[in-house]
Amino acid sequence: MPSPTMKALRKARPDRGAQLESIPVPSIGPNDVLVRVRAASICGTDLHIYEWDAWSQSRLRPPLTFGHEFCGVVEKIGDEVAGFAPGDFVSAEMHVNCGHCLPCRLGEGHVCENVRIIGIDVDGCFAEFVRIPARNVWKIDPSIPVHYAAVMDPLGNAVHTVLAGPVAGRTVAVTGCGPIGLMSIAVARAAGASTVIATEVNAYRRELATKMGADAALDPAAGDVVAQAKDMTGGDGVDVLLEMSGHPEAIHQGLAMLRPGGRASLLGIPRGPVTLNLFDDVIGKGVVVQGIFGRRMFGTWVEMTALLKSGRLNLEPLFHERLPIENFQQAFELLEAGRANKVLLFPNGFVD
Amino acid sequence: MPSPTMKALRKARPDRGAQLESIPVPSIGPNDVLVRVRAASICGTDLHIYEWDAWSQSRLRPPLTFGHEFCGVVEKIGDEVAGFAPGDFVSAEMHVNCGHCLPCRLGEGHVCENVRIIGIDVDGCFAEFVRIPARNVWKIDPSIPVHYAAVMDPLGNAVHTVLAGPVAGRTVAVTGCGPIGLMSIAVARAAGASTVIATEVNAYRRELATKMGADAALDPAAGDVVAQAKDMTGGDGVDVLLEMSGHPEAIHQGLAMLRPGGRASLLGIPRGPVTLNLFDDVIGKGVVVQGIFGRRMFGTWVEMTALLKSGRLNLEPLFHERLPIENFQQAFELLEAGRANKVLLFPNGFVD
Amino acid sequence: MPSPTMKALRKARPDRGAQLESIPVPSIGPNDVLVRVRAASICGTDLHIYEWDAWSQSRLRPPLTFGHEFCGVVEKIGDEVAGFAPGDFVSAEMHVNCGHCLPCRLGEGHVCENVRIIGIDVDGCFAEFVRIPARNVWKIDPSIPVHYAAVMDPLGNAVHTVLAGPVAGRTVAVTGCGPIGLMSIAVARAAGASTVIATEVNAYRRELATKMGADAALDPAAGDVVAQAKDMTGGDGVDVLLEMSGHPEAIHQGLAMLRPGGRASLLGIPRGPVTLNLFDDVIGKGVVVQGIFGRRMFGTWVEMTALLKSGRLNLEPLFHERLPIENFQQAFELLEAGRANKVLLFPNGFVD
Amino acid sequence: MPSPTMKALRKARPDRGAQLESIPVPSIGPNDVLVRVRAASICGTDLHIYEWDAWSQSRLRPPLTFGHEFCGVVEKIGDEVAGFAPGDFVSAEMHVNCGHCLPCRLGEGHVCENVRIIGIDVDGCFAEFVRIPARNVWKIDPSIPVHYAAVMDPLGNAVHTVLAGPVAGRTVAVTGCGPIGLMSIAVARAAGASTVIATEVNAYRRELATKMGADAALDPAAGDVVAQAKDMTGGDGVDVLLEMSGHPEAIHQGLAMLRPGGRASLLGIPRGPVTLNLFDDVIGKGVVVQGIFGRRMFGTWVEMTALLKSGRLNLEPLFHERLPIENFQQAFELLEAGRANKVLLFPNGFVD
Repeated sequence: MPSPTMKALRKARPDRGAQLESIPVPSIGPNDVLVRVRAASICGTDLHIYEWDAWSQSRLRPPLTFGHEFCGVVEKIGDEVAGFAPGDFVSAEMHVNCGHCLPCRLGEGHVCENVRIIGIDVDGCFAEFVRIPARNVWKIDPSIPVHYAAVMDPLGNAVHTVLAGPVAGRTVAVTGCGPIGLMSIAVARAAGASTVIATEVNAYRRELATKMGADAALDPAAGDVVAQAKDMTGGDGVDVLLEMSGHPEAIHQGLAMLRPGGRASLLGIPRGPVTLNLFDDVIGKGVVVQGIFGRRMFGTWVEMTALLKSGRLNLEPLFHERLPIENFQQAFELLEAGRANKVLLFPNGFVD
Repeated sequence: MPSPTMKALRKARPDRGAQLESIPVPSIGPNDVLVRVRAASICGTDLHIYEWDAWSQSRLRPPLTFGHEFCGVVEKIGDEVAGFAPGDFVSAEMHVNCGHCLPCRLGEGHVCENVRIIGIDVDGCFAEFVRIPARNVWKIDPSIPVHYAAVMDPLGNAVHTVLAGPVAGRTVAVTGCGPIGLMSIAVARAAGASTVIATEVNAYRRELATKMGADAALDPAAGDVVAQAKDMTGGDGVDVLLEMSGHPEAIHQGLAMLRPGGRASLLGIPRGPVTLNLFDDVIGKGVVVQGIFGRRMFGTWVEMTALLKSGRLNLEPLFHERLPIENFQQAFELLEAGRANKVLLFPNGFVD
Repeated sequence: MPSPTMKALRKARPDRGAQLESIPVPSIGPNDVLVRVRAASICGTDLHIYEWDAWSQSRLRPPLTFGHEFCGVVEKIGDEVAGFAPGDFVSAEMHVNCGHCLPCRLGEGHVCENVRIIGIDVDGCFAEFVRIPARNVWKIDPSIPVHYAAVMDPLGNAVHTVLAGPVAGRTVAVTGCGPIGLMSIAVARAAGASTVIATEVNAYRRELATKMGADAALDPAAGDVVAQAKDMTGGDGVDVLLEMSGHPEAIHQGLAMLRPGGRASLLGIPRGPVTLNLFDDVIGKGVVVQGIFGRRMFGTWVEMTALLKSGRLNLEPLFHERLPIENFQQAFELLEAGRANKVLLFPNGFVD
Repeated sequence: MPSPTMKALRKARPDRGAQLESIPVPSIGPNDVLVRVRAASICGTDLHIYEWDAWSQSRLRPPLTFGHEFCGVVEKIGDEVAGFAPGDFVSAEMHVNCGHCLPCRLGEGHVCENVRIIGIDVDGCFAEFVRIPARNVWKIDPSIPVHYAAVMDPLGNAVHTVLAGPVAGRTVAVTGCGPIGLMSIAVARAAGASTVIATEVNAYRRELATKMGADAALDPAAGDVVAQAKDMTGGDGVDVLLEMSGHPEAIHQGLAMLRPGGRASLLGIPRGPVTLNLFDDVIGKGVVVQGIFGRRMFGTWVEMTALLKSGRLNLEPLFHERLPIENFQQAFELLEAGRANKVLLFPNGFVD
């Protein structure tokens, strides 16, 4: 009997682009879950993979089904799996930690020394089906809309960053308004931030920042954002910096607008080394700088689910095109043109 | 030249009641500020003083002007005072800490070993003027409404309790819906609590709890509130308990509805010793129980001001009668009858 | 072929005592490790089981091999086990958490809602061999002596309790000097406590407390230990309480000797409800009370291993008799008579 | 009547060197304390002032009595001062915070926005007498030796840095072994660090590092200290970095040897901007970087006093020459030659 096949968006060769292929549906081991993908969302990383940039070339080993943001329905469970059943609505933590290294043993699996990422190191979710270790599957309340459930991976980055310290009654700067930056604005407001100041060079994204709840969306190209932020905070500077751009200039500005004793949480990934005014901006101000990576397993998922379920997050402004997976080329072109935020792909025929 | 006089509501004698008297306007020292009281609010403690209960008899030394919740306008400042000027709109931290004891030296002045409370140990704010050490005066943004500014003392208790640990994306129980409990509901929601469950025996207060934003207001007399709270949290129990009643039964219920690893913040003052299931409810569940007293100086004030200024707290359901200070008897009777929450007294003629 | 057998100390029937029996060596599953027991240590809980007290009657289902403190050598590993090999020197976390409940998902597996304890709920380590899920096995540096490795379970309780908050440069009270209390004294000193004050009614244990490094070992039967502790701390009270007795009187005294803003970590298990002066001792002092249960998985193990490996803990005064498992009756009698602290049993013939 | 005079070591003119002059004994205000200096210690900053480097030129306004590390005896107190009396043995926090700015209000006076430093902005302790605001004076237990009491300022830097997070049972790297780095080694060991790895290019200081308790003192010029530190920590990297040098190379090495999820506390002051591998060393590893400045007021002083009083810190290897203040030139030359660590000056005639 031939094994059943499925559609999958593949990086087949080490060059630009991707191919929609028919490949066997993944077989699962005793501790795995097979999920039928309902909707998948395209990450900036996926665009890098599509474009085959330097990072992709150094990390990926084609052929590979990529994609790591999604939601779906459990199709089949392995023999040893407890707690899931076919039909469950789920998403998944796509960072698979080893469980053995020191960070894992300390409960810090999000910085596992041997992490493997589904959709980067092994086949991902741009397909009709994806195989996930049961430990990484996350059951979702059916009241959470499909398009929100499809972006829990980046939303988790935002929640991890925002809630890495106190936010209620505090002033917050968000430097960089890509999707995770925009989500952070919504999360910060839901968590009681008194003022949210966004900085972003792209006018379209500044507009979105305002829609997501920012009190101000400042343009670093048009004025002194540090002075503006200080002005908006009575001269003190912001209590919290959420750095979402990875751009050296934004990192400088963010740290400069932080008050003494403030918190800086850095999620944006710089492309190279960054030069800091380490005394003026960190040491002399007694600032705490946190590196943020991934999502806490699974504290972040618990918090995020609770925020979504209670209806405290309005993410609607983030969503744009919804396309059948066959139209993937159109999706990547939209993203390359900077004309879209979250584009959803539907590999199983229905688009909603 | 005779010293100027003012109206003051006094506990003149060690028995029930109070007297409106004419006494000299307080003189101030080099580090003091004289404030013209705009509005004063009556605390449950003031009712105890009015009724001259056991605690009042043991603590107060009449004659005394009582009252410790208020806002007003700076009338005069001492020679050494910097940072304030006549005309400033202010409230004040009425716990005056010594600055010398170990807790004070450790930055925990809210549990100072030598605290003196204005309105209890020295003359308070139920008067046209009140004298406050400059260090304890808190400048208020003029955008904050007078009736909100008058209740920053109890609101600070609520903010201190709610923000003593993480709240965003967490389920919260509030046991006891007096004014501070009700305020805590609003603060917890503003800080991103996903579900707020209130318990309260008084039907009127349960109704207020819902108006303040509670998802459920449960009646312990009518059913098993522990089972109800567990049911509302998927069987796990709540993440956070805010104990606002001081009643042993509510403390039991609150701790029983807390999940393993949860946080219990206790502000309500029990009248006597309390018997706990210390293993089942605290030790075996790995729970953290925090005693909460007063307001952090002045972290709580900073947070509270930011929340108020950004319009994140709707406290309107709390307010009831607004009376000239001459009608104090009516005010205390309303409170004794349980027919009012926050009653405001206006000692300077205008009522708004 | 008959399956191999082994000696095991069994609770064969629901009454007092225990029996040394010959039973099959446990078979292991794909994720298990079989450990040859080198030395096992007797816990107070084991004495309760031996005596068949009310708690034992309610929890245990004989027949059962009991015992949950031990070290040994890996004999065999399951097919899926990575990271261990026969010959490894190991101990184990005997609380097996479910991995699925909310506390487990939040990284707080030590308060798992479905915990099963090896030696209480399933067969334990008073035997030649014990089966342990690989995830719970802990590799030990060969430089750590056998008798120390055998008590990592209770030592982990002590480390969990002491390091649940800052200790360096702080004054510490330890109420109750059973084995875990005594270990806590050594851990607190290793962690930089400036003064360690122990309280204990038993003179022999007070002597041991001094040997373990306590600056004072006070007798609650002989004087006012609260006044003595305050006197030793300049009138302020201690910064940290480590409650190790579970006795209501000791809990009272411990909380009363704690300074405002102090930390109380409760590990001792009271036999029934405990009445507290909740306002005077907790709320009004702004104290934090932590319930402590088990050991953090596996942060506590990491810390404990580092402390042992670096030679910072001298536990010698704790150890007493070392007996072949055949002499178990003598061991339990020694413990019942209060004439021993940690008694080690050797099930595999050699005693050292 | 002429005012009494005293000897004072002055920066009289804006150029290299210093002058011993006779100037009036400072008069004190109502909230000040006049202290007769028993011993003063020379900081690296004092050497910069002596040498009149770029920083000194930008900050100091001669004429000025410099010096900010000392102990002494209370000579006279202002009219409003409580808690001190002539004869008290004291040291002092020389950072005078304003009490009004946001950090001060939040209890973070060590990062006050308007700090004035005694010995830099106003007359300091290289004199027979020094004037200190009462709030900044710190009473010392007479059991603490004079030479230890004289270095509480830098020791406080070390204690602030080491105790800014957990240390017990953790591996610690100290990059840079000047006096504060050396003190940090002693503090880390007293606080239970399992392994302390020091890095330092100067052979004499490496020898001192070992005397202070470092398990290893590595020479960055002689080998790959990152690889060596990883090797000493089983390949994981250290749990805690205490950066004491301010040198970009040491900062790189320190961050590179830190494990994922580790803590980096930076006290050393870089001379200019520093380029970091922000993703590899901070973001991707989920590391927390703390800027450390000054000493917590007065939590650090409480901890430091407790550690000193309990005899847990052996600082003897740090001390070198003890000279009458008249020999100041010899003292600065010793320091310039790198041949001394802490040199003590005695302005009041007796040297011990």
